[in-house]
Amino acid sequence: MTDRGFTSTQLAARAAYLLRGNDLGTMTSAAPRLYPHMWSWDAAFVAVGLAPLSVERAVVELDTLLSAQWKNGMIPHIVFANGVDGYFPGPSRWLTQSLAAHAPSHTHTSGITQPPVHAIAVQRILDHARRHGRSTRAVAEEFLDRRWPDLVRWHRWLATARDIDGNGRIALYHGWESGMDNSPRWDAPYAGVVAGSMPEYLRADLDVVTDARQRPTDVEYDRYLWLLEEMKAVRYDDTELAKVMSFAVEDVFVSAVFSMACQVLAAIGEEHSMPRADVRDLNSWADRFQQGVVATTDARSGAAKDFDIRSGRWVATETLAMFAPLLCGGLDRDVERVLLRTFEGPKFCGHPDLRYAVPPSTSPVSREFRPREYWRGPVWPVMTWLFSWAFARRGWAERAYLLKSEGLRQAADGSFAEYYEPFTGAPLGSMQQSWTAAAVLDWLG
Amino acid sequence: MTDRGFTSTQLAARAAYLLRGNDLGTMTSAAPRLYPHMWSWDAAFVAVGLAPLSVERAVVELDTLLSAQWKNGMIPHIVFANGVDGYFPGPSRWLTQSLAAHAPSHTHTSGITQPPVHAIAVQRILDHARRHGRSTRAVAEEFLDRRWPDLVRWHRWLATARDIDGNGRIALYHGWESGMDNSPRWDAPYAGVVAGSMPEYLRADLDVVTDARQRPTDVEYDRYLWLLEEMKAVRYDDTELAKVMSFAVEDVFVSAVFSMACQVLAAIGEEHSMPRADVRDLNSWADRFQQGVVATTDARSGAAKDFDIRSGRWVATETLAMFAPLLCGGLDRDVERVLLRTFEGPKFCGHPDLRYAVPPSTSPVSREFRPREYWRGPVWPVMTWLFSWAFARRGWAERAYLLKSEGLRQAADGSFAEYYEPFTGAPLGSMQQSWTAAAVLDWLG
Amino acid sequence: MTDRGFTSTQLAARAAYLLRGNDLGTMTSAAPRLYPHMWSWDAAFVAVGLAPLSVERAVVELDTLLSAQWKNGMIPHIVFANGVDGYFPGPSRWLTQSLAAHAPSHTHTSGITQPPVHAIAVQRILDHARRHGRSTRAVAEEFLDRRWPDLVRWHRWLATARDIDGNGRIALYHGWESGMDNSPRWDAPYAGVVAGSMPEYLRADLDVVTDARQRPTDVEYDRYLWLLEEMKAVRYDDTELAKVMSFAVEDVFVSAVFSMACQVLAAIGEEHSMPRADVRDLNSWADRFQQGVVATTDARSGAAKDFDIRSGRWVATETLAMFAPLLCGGLDRDVERVLLRTFEGPKFCGHPDLRYAVPPSTSPVSREFRPREYWRGPVWPVMTWLFSWAFARRGWAERAYLLKSEGLRQAADGSFAEYYEPFTGAPLGSMQQSWTAAAVLDWLG
Amino acid sequence: MTDRGFTSTQLAARAAYLLRGNDLGTMTSAAPRLYPHMWSWDAAFVAVGLAPLSVERAVVELDTLLSAQWKNGMIPHIVFANGVDGYFPGPSRWLTQSLAAHAPSHTHTSGITQPPVHAIAVQRILDHARRHGRSTRAVAEEFLDRRWPDLVRWHRWLATARDIDGNGRIALYHGWESGMDNSPRWDAPYAGVVAGSMPEYLRADLDVVTDARQRPTDVEYDRYLWLLEEMKAVRYDDTELAKVMSFAVEDVFVSAVFSMACQVLAAIGEEHSMPRADVRDLNSWADRFQQGVVATTDARSGAAKDFDIRSGRWVATETLAMFAPLLCGGLDRDVERVLLRTFEGPKFCGHPDLRYAVPPSTSPVSREFRPREYWRGPVWPVMTWLFSWAFARRGWAERAYLLKSEGLRQAADGSFAEYYEPFTGAPLGSMQQSWTAAAVLDWLG
Repeated sequence: MTDRGFTSTQLAARAAYLLRGNDLGTMTSAAPRLYPHMWSWDAAFVAVGLAPLSVERAVVELDTLLSAQWKNGMIPHIVFANGVDGYFPGPSRWLTQSLAAHAPSHTHTSGITQPPVHAIAVQRILDHARRHGRSTRAVAEEFLDRRWPDLVRWHRWLATARDIDGNGRIALYHGWESGMDNSPRWDAPYAGVVAGSMPEYLRADLDVVTDARQRPTDVEYDRYLWLLEEMKAVRYDDTELAKVMSFAVEDVFVSAVFSMACQVLAAIGEEHSMPRADVRDLNSWADRFQQGVVATTDARSGAAKDFDIRSGRWVATETLAMFAPLLCGGLDRDVERVLLRTFEGPKFCGHPDLRYAVPPSTSPVSREFRPREYWRGPVWPVMTWLFSWAFARRGWAERAYLLKSEGLRQAADGSFAEYYEPFTGAPLGSMQQSWTAAAVLDWLG
Repeated sequence: MTDRGFTSTQLAARAAYLLRGNDLGTMTSAAPRLYPHMWSWDAAFVAVGLAPLSVERAVVELDTLLSAQWKNGMIPHIVFANGVDGYFPGPSRWLTQSLAAHAPSHTHTSGITQPPVHAIAVQRILDHARRHGRSTRAVAEEFLDRRWPDLVRWHRWLATARDIDGNGRIALYHGWESGMDNSPRWDAPYAGVVAGSMPEYLRADLDVVTDARQRPTDVEYDRYLWLLEEMKAVRYDDTELAKVMSFAVEDVFVSAVFSMACQVLAAIGEEHSMPRADVRDLNSWADRFQQGVVATTDARSGAAKDFDIRSGRWVATETLAMFAPLLCGGLDRDVERVLLRTFEGPKFCGHPDLRYAVPPSTSPVSREFRPREYWRGPVWPVMTWLFSWAFARRGWAERAYLLKSEGLRQAADGSFAEYYEPFTGAPLGSMQQSWTAAAVLDWLG
Repeated sequence: MTDRGFTSTQLAARAAYLLRGNDLGTMTSAAPRLYPHMWSWDAAFVAVGLAPLSVERAVVELDTLLSAQWKNGMIPHIVFANGVDGYFPGPSRWLTQSLAAHAPSHTHTSGITQPPVHAIAVQRILDHARRHGRSTRAVAEEFLDRRWPDLVRWHRWLATARDIDGNGRIALYHGWESGMDNSPRWDAPYAGVVAGSMPEYLRADLDVVTDARQRPTDVEYDRYLWLLEEMKAVRYDDTELAKVMSFAVEDVFVSAVFSMACQVLAAIGEEHSMPRADVRDLNSWADRFQQGVVATTDARSGAAKDFDIRSGRWVATETLAMFAPLLCGGLDRDVERVLLRTFEGPKFCGHPDLRYAVPPSTSPVSREFRPREYWRGPVWPVMTWLFSWAFARRGWAERAYLLKSEGLRQAADGSFAEYYEPFTGAPLGSMQQSWTAAAVLDWLG
Repeated sequence: MTDRGFTSTQLAARAAYLLRGNDLGTMTSAAPRLYPHMWSWDAAFVAVGLAPLSVERAVVELDTLLSAQWKNGMIPHIVFANGVDGYFPGPSRWLTQSLAAHAPSHTHTSGITQPPVHAIAVQRILDHARRHGRSTRAVAEEFLDRRWPDLVRWHRWLATARDIDGNGRIALYHGWESGMDNSPRWDAPYAGVVAGSMPEYLRADLDVVTDARQRPTDVEYDRYLWLLEEMKAVRYDDTELAKVMSFAVEDVFVSAVFSMACQVLAAIGEEHSMPRADVRDLNSWADRFQQGVVATTDARSGAAKDFDIRSGRWVATETLAMFAPLLCGGLDRDVERVLLRTFEGPKFCGHPDLRYAVPPSTSPVSREFRPREYWRGPVWPVMTWLFSWAFARRGWAERAYLLKSEGLRQAADGSFAEYYEPFTGAPLGSMQQSWTAAAVLDWLG
């Protein structure tokens, strides 16, 4: 008899066991060995996964993250666990505490940011709290009261410091800020990055993931680190960064996530009678970035594009970024339908060789497609979750259901890998990835 | 809207999150604060709860326990976590390493034992392994090969060192060995224990459980500790203990558990082609202890009794011990039916005021009944589980199903308490008790 | 032990057993005794419930209904089962075959219509077909090809014959056309109906529902029947009806349902490449009726109103009709939020005395509220379903989930009643109502 | 995307929809076209499937069957639906009303019997009633009171009229009485049946199942019918049949089922305080037939054999009959384990080419094996159910679970076929077979 996988309750138990195993007390590390710290968007997804089993613990996760928020409003992409090392580049490479005026003094963080999915986590916490008794609801509501100003500051920073020209698109100064580190989206922008002289370093990621093909190459890694030197040279100053960084792109996917997050946060604010001015700002940002996203799209296909600020060129790729408008809305109905067909058709979820009908990070029919290389092809369960959640929000209950049920079929092997080979379903990257477990826990209800 | 509790998958996730939170690496502590070490029968139940989500981790749990087995075969009731203190009586009170010839040298243990439920855990590990692929099955089978001799040694020690007269009943020298520390079953035997002069001590349990009524009194505690001094005086020597201990009882419940465990282990041995001599011995012990249990029962009601060796008196109580024969079998069909009626009737599960139809530790109609005092009344989910599992084994699928479904209704509050008030369902004792979470995980499949 | 109700699978089985019990071959009667024929919107809901268990059978249901469509496009509110009598008013009272130019010749129907929820059923059939193999998908797609023109004709008739002034609201000439026969919404309009001389009659409904308080009074019933005489006098001619009927209202709820149904049907049309002109018309109707609904709403509360054409007065009631805009959308975000708060607050779902948090047909705080009288207070599971489905479509996944889970808790008694007492949960009206079973089957997935 | 089958609730709904579709009012026909009447053991299994969704309807099913019980106690193998024809051999071929002294006068029945699984159905009805409220429990208990004498009479008839020599084995006079009409078990006994001159006939079964290879051949059919003539010649007199029938076998499978049914009925009798003499008789029959079954087994393998009374020869086959002792118990532990290994090993459930790990009617390694021919190879879900239920009763919870979960995987195609090809899983025989749906409903809880 072949392996029968895990039942729903067994899978939920296994996912939760993993999450607690990655727990460092008040933060859940992204993965047990490769990522022993808190990542910004990982933390938000983790909170989504914790909420069904403990609203209280989910709140702690976001509190920890928000305690490391910079004074300018930025949520840094890494909050380093105290006294833990073993990740490169670590605090001694970023040097944010000594260089950046806005960095917090009590905790180590990186100096860049990550996609703003946190409002979603806040929403899920409130959703689950509602089903429980008074004391749990109070925990969630006090959290919201306490952190509302921080959440708005975070969004305000993105809407100002990172939307330089006010065109409704978020500028990134490092591929890592997109969360999709080595996506083909950044090949052209990175081509313009020339690594200068910098301190030596030893990569930590290859100790864990021994199949180097699943990870970025050394040349790529040199560029990644060079950008840090550029940032450090201007002490992470928002205004300076816009001028000096040799990597500067408008990320349409992050922009769409931001528009959606503003919609979500505005709705929360209205529901909980938060200051009207905040809600007004959030709604205006939601609209501006929605328009910013739509402005990048192809008139017929609806596919969205990134923009390379340095070269002044649009970057069209067959990656998940194409589908940015499906997250935030705003396309004409006809065009949106065409884009949905692409998403569900043979270029993505409907590719005949896929093991499960979930979207690969890069289309299998694209020249850039590499089935085992990180963001160049593999399926990322957390992306499947993000689309399924966004689709339910858009009112596409059936589409959301299909992504969820295929995502759960994929997860039934119990590996909770960071990403998966699209054709074979082989787990890749870090095993026991927190956000993969979190996605499964949310799906299982 | 009132609290809607947790769904099945949420409950499974919460239980597993708890178990990993109590995980100390290669052992799962019994509870986060009150019991920061490994208890023998807790460990077995914990392995039952781990098996559905990770056969591999369940195997580690039993390996850790069996690594602390004494040379004479005894599995000690506590294996102390390295370098952790905060439980009294701890290693410095037991002094087993320095006094007991058979105690292991590499790890600290207590000097008494606990009910032999471990064969059940082995069975569940093998059950779950069967549903998985080759590598998981291999883990389980190698474990069995590796530990079979230890398991048989453990049973042999019980059948010889603890069945002094060969009458098919296990002798205990401390109430703690029964696992039901302050049960009314031991009131009479303890009355004969006169605490002599002994080192001072400070109880640790009351730091955590602040409602002292849920815990034993100080007078009781003095007697508990005096027995340790008696054991230490004879250096934990099996032969001497039988002579000198002022507390010595034949525990009918442990005897029934042992008979059942011998049946289970014999079946495993046959299934996996273990040495025939071992299987033969196990079967003969199963029979002898079944007869030993049946010999204590009332001819009409089928209720079993303990025996106070020191006073030479039978001890009949309205506690779970009455139902010992339902676990191991052996009663005449008619009498068994009467006993089942008592179990399901108004004295136990069918008491009209019970919140859930699960057996209280002591009957609510008994004079000894105290609804909040440990083993004097509260419901212990792990006992509900043990009966439900044993009933399924006896072929009573429907009875097993009912206990399980009521046990799950009780657990839906998510507290995973050590025990519960029978009428209100209020959680009592330690919260986040590992074995309660484990029982729920097994029930949820 | 109290009644434990039915598990999810048992409930699904019981619902399906009921549906087949009401099956007359190619139609499912609305209920076993009280309603032994096919009702128009019942049939649509029944198809929703059949689709998960048999796409093929669901298609048959709609085919039967559409086979009785009138030549002008109207789907009549009753299709009479061949050779079955026992319902009043029956074919001999309606006399549509002899009087109405557009009535079908081969089957008996009534001469009025009912709310246009049929596009929803078509959508659910297509949804379920998608999860199955090629042959099932073909059944669904051939059905769509075959019936698309009929569905568009049906919508076109509503948008023309029944929107006399083109203001985006459906005119009704009988309270029965609203599906909410005796709702307080129609008290004022009916007050203007003076029953003239007409043939004698004997009510059939009271034979089955013996508690007369759950049904309309005799005076009400006289008016109901008089309207038939008015229709017959003009031979059911659409143009004449607009002039002569003493009952004529613009039903805001039906208008909202129609807008939503146009949205759904347009989306299906686009998805399946139906004629562009059809899709364009559907979209324009969707918009016009959405505006028509919004035009009735209170600027602050968002509550919608009906309009009594004969008296020229708006009719504001605290009934489900208030919430019409939540179905079709179109309110300003702020106002919509206020209306949602009313829906979820103490006037409706959040009333503290409700047994389950589902919307009563009339608010318990309204003067018109009668907890056991049909549409004057009781909870109608099919309405709970309609709101939960519409809410999911609007992107309110969590709200949809809550209605569904409360609706299922209510249904767990297994009675599948037509409606329920809101405070006690007592089943009322016809038991074994097909659409209640259908709603449960859709909810259970 | 391939066909995703049905979810658990959809499958339950589909099964129940089928059962009601086969419902003829107070009886459920065995299948819609091939078997438009009530079969004895089908009815018992149908009641098992109805009980979870309606205890009341399940009771009706057994009441209908028992109303056709013969005066001598025999439950006939067919109760003909009133006024329905279309099955051969029908009432006019059996002529029981005119010939048999004991046949009921008010209803048409066949003149032979079928396996006595009815006590199981009674047990399941009582099980389900227990979970419901007072009125449902009363329905079940009144049924038991009303029918207890009939059930005992039925068992008494089997224990006397059909155990001629009192050796604890049931004698059958027709292969149909075994329920396994064309099993290789009966090849030898049928070889001794020489069809004489008899009325002409036209088979009805081949109209429905057009692939003749799935059904018995014409030569076989001639013999089947000749035996009716032999019975009619002696007017179905029990004593005469024993002498004259050219087919007479001791069926070890039916004998084991009978022993088990006696155990079950005795337990029910004890539980519900039925007359002690009845219980005593039932227990003694249970024991006698258990011994009768064990007496046929091979000392090493534990495999059971049938006995051909006419030839005086044992008939050992590699069919389900081998496993008879697993149902009723009684084998030595060692031998039983060997027999279980055969059941689970490569000759049956563990055959490497099986689509699902469920027992084929005849072993794939047997020379008699035909994968598509009725009882010569195909998998019968109702047999999988019977073994899973019996295994749970024997205390083999895990084995029961595995059969159930594999049985449900097989059923997920939604065809509810009478039997299935073991290697491909193709549905064969009658589709929409009531007892297959019933088995699934019981499994789904």
